[in-house]
Amino acid sequence: MNNTETLDQPQRGELFAVACPSRQVLQNVTSRWGVLVLVALMSGTYRFSDLRRKIGGVSEKMLAQTLQALEADGFVLRTARPVVPPYVEYSLTHMGQEVAREVESLADWIEGNLYRIMAQRQARESELQAA
Amino acid sequence: MNNTETLDQPQRGELFAVACPSRQVLQNVTSRWGVLVLVALMSGTYRFSDLRRKIGGVSEKMLAQTLQALEADGFVLRTARPVVPPYVEYSLTHMGQEVAREVESLADWIEGNLYRIMAQRQARESELQAA
Repeated sequence: MNNTETLDQPQRGELFAVACPSRQVLQNVTSRWGVLVLVALMSGTYRFSDLRRKIGGVSEKMLAQTLQALEADGFVLRTARPVVPPYVEYSLTHMGQEVAREVESLADWIEGNLYRIMAQRQARESELQAA
Repeated sequence: MNNTETLDQPQRGELFAVACPSRQVLQNVTSRWGVLVLVALMSGTYRFSDLRRKIGGVSEKMLAQTLQALEADGFVLRTARPVVPPYVEYSLTHMGQEVAREVESLADWIEGNLYRIMAQRQARESELQAA
């Protein structure tokens, strides 16, 4: 432990600032498919087609774009297997596992509390109709 | 504690399923502005104009839409103050505080690790240029 360590700390991102690149990272990990790709890859390494099967409704194009963005941020590792026939597989990097844990915690909260949210929506709709 | 309690539990959402309404909730809380509104409101009650000032770059229209979606899900409470001149203020509901904590944890991770992500991006760009 070094006393000057805090001086050497790199600057934090600032999501409230317009030009901070953290905003793009946030977009990548919380995009419609980004969340699901991260959570899916927490359970292991997947080939493209298996990942696509796991994530209901994603198109080939959107899955490819999502994986590329997550790879560029250093969250997803793309490995080409030069076998016959060759294939590509995707896994989380160490940093990807860290961010995926955060994203999964949020996803888990939403799944577990959906019934409360739906009840709120219904109550609100009834109110609006009665008004 | 009731032995039949688990039988009475409402069904969980399932984000991997195409038609699950949890997907729309996820979109609302992780939209570009949804995240920032939730995190901003963790620090208290805001008028529309103050909230807009705090969140760099958000338009009036997008902020209004974001607040409406979060209100419909039961996360944000909109209170009209009938004073002269009248004004409207926004705060988190109890459920909004719960989901905001999850979102803030993710936002905090991204802000705190941005320097690692940027380093990854640079390393990757150098590799691509060298190839």
